[in-house]
Amino acid sequence: MAGVSVPTVSKVLNGRSDVAEATRARVEQLIQEHGYRRRSAGTTSSPMIDLVFSQFESEWAIQLIGGVKDVARAEGVELVLSECGGGWRPRQEWIESVLNRRPLGAILVFSDLDTDQRAQLEARRIPFVVVDPVGDVAADVPAIGSANWNGGRMATQHLTGLGHRRIAVIGGPVEVLCSRQRVDGYTDALRSAGLTVDPELIRVGDFGVTGGYREALALLRLPDRPTAIFAGNDMQALGIYQAARELGLEIPRDLSVVGYDDLPVAQWVGPTLTTVHQPLRQMAELATRLVLDLARGNTPAALRLDLAVDMRIRASTAPPPPPN
Amino acid sequence: MAGVSVPTVSKVLNGRSDVAEATRARVEQLIQEHGYRRRSAGTTSSPMIDLVFSQFESEWAIQLIGGVKDVARAEGVELVLSECGGGWRPRQEWIESVLNRRPLGAILVFSDLDTDQRAQLEARRIPFVVVDPVGDVAADVPAIGSANWNGGRMATQHLTGLGHRRIAVIGGPVEVLCSRQRVDGYTDALRSAGLTVDPELIRVGDFGVTGGYREALALLRLPDRPTAIFAGNDMQALGIYQAARELGLEIPRDLSVVGYDDLPVAQWVGPTLTTVHQPLRQMAELATRLVLDLARGNTPAALRLDLAVDMRIRASTAPPPPPN
Repeated sequence: MAGVSVPTVSKVLNGRSDVAEATRARVEQLIQEHGYRRRSAGTTSSPMIDLVFSQFESEWAIQLIGGVKDVARAEGVELVLSECGGGWRPRQEWIESVLNRRPLGAILVFSDLDTDQRAQLEARRIPFVVVDPVGDVAADVPAIGSANWNGGRMATQHLTGLGHRRIAVIGGPVEVLCSRQRVDGYTDALRSAGLTVDPELIRVGDFGVTGGYREALALLRLPDRPTAIFAGNDMQALGIYQAARELGLEIPRDLSVVGYDDLPVAQWVGPTLTTVHQPLRQMAELATRLVLDLARGNTPAALRLDLAVDMRIRASTAPPPPPN
Repeated sequence: MAGVSVPTVSKVLNGRSDVAEATRARVEQLIQEHGYRRRSAGTTSSPMIDLVFSQFESEWAIQLIGGVKDVARAEGVELVLSECGGGWRPRQEWIESVLNRRPLGAILVFSDLDTDQRAQLEARRIPFVVVDPVGDVAADVPAIGSANWNGGRMATQHLTGLGHRRIAVIGGPVEVLCSRQRVDGYTDALRSAGLTVDPELIRVGDFGVTGGYREALALLRLPDRPTAIFAGNDMQALGIYQAARELGLEIPRDLSVVGYDDLPVAQWVGPTLTTVHQPLRQMAELATRLVLDLARGNTPAALRLDLAVDMRIRASTAPPPPPN
């Protein structure tokens, strides 16, 4: 039907890259139209789930792996771990290896597939779910996130409630949706409290300790420095701690700090970090159940879910120091 | 030759558990004697490596995964992640799933196989390497570790060098070899410095923040409390920080603390933690290269290696306070 040879179809099925783009698209469309299913490897193959991180060497990755692992283990499914390698999308080699391995499904964390990659998985009926999508995802892509805008607003309201008026924010990279949502929640809370939004107090970090440190140093050296910083995430909050120590400022006496995520480290540092608790583990569990449901042909109750977040008030926030 | 039916041999090959122990042993011995190799699944199967943790939700797991991942990726090999689930040995289901998946090899972190599990992998020629073995491993088992005894000695010498005389240690669980090695290095350093070893100052923790906190509280409430604590690992050091804060003791003015591992968190806490740097990433890389070498039938230069460790002196150690 595709007007190509059997080896060519086989190449397309195996996700090989040495096939002309147009040919591959034609074969894949036919595969999909006719509902072709590749013969399963039978009972000897172990069922697997693919978990893909854009970058997994972060503290929160371990929380997410934990959630996926618990559900996978209860279901007798093995876990294959990959990493995009810096970018926000899996490499083409990943797609090829997935098509070869034929896992039950894939969970993409903080990353996304392009239209083409998506078509390749869909043609083989390998379902996927995006956790904490980094950018916009098409309306029909299953995705699990959390209420980032609310979280940013909560964090800032906690600070205005303590009496702070000069509150800065250090967001993550601007291309990351959840970061922009948190910063928007921050500006909304300022406006609701009748405060002016000072663009000088809105900074862009990297979601790492270094970015938090760099931006905090700049903020704390301003002539009219902020009395509180909303860190955007816990790693950046640790960078703010470093900057404050270096400048001889005491937290929370001279500076209040709010993090985001509630990683274990938030309770280990001194002073313990006030932060927005993001249910990372639960998000990962839900994503895993969702992908397994899709793999079994069940229709899940909902394909898109944002979980609620809440404040964990600890020792890094206090009323602002009296004005000089 | 084994005097059993074909389905029985097939069950043994697939690692199924519904075969009598004696039968399985007989079939496996024949497999090994005759050098039987199962037909490979051919080019369509993606090569995989299994990485097994006794418990991977620890901060150092991410360092090790990072090292394995880098080598695996460069070699075009996928990474399957499992966990023993509390114990020190993989569950039988893991063995069954490995026998089904036939990975190139397996890397076991902080865990070990029993004789039986080992025979099952060996019969299928699936090589394995142990990283940071938790207990004794047979002399011919490939293993990558680090110089724990030296590390414990270095940490303690750093403290005696600063003038400390009452130095406590909080070890990890006693069944863990590396923990006993570190504590022995500690007692050796004390003796070399002409100091008495006070059994009251040798405590058993759990390699977690909680254990460090609990044991530090007990130590710091002693009538003649120590002026320095060697934490056994960085997590326990964080627990000591908590205990010190609670008792109003300032680090390093009132108490010096040395960690072990040099996890990223050691540089994030205040004061930054003096610790013994264990090259976790490099250990994982070496283990991965070793297992791939074995899988390719190459004879590695050495099957057992301990990497060197070194001190990272930061802000948590100082000379002891003057005696009251």
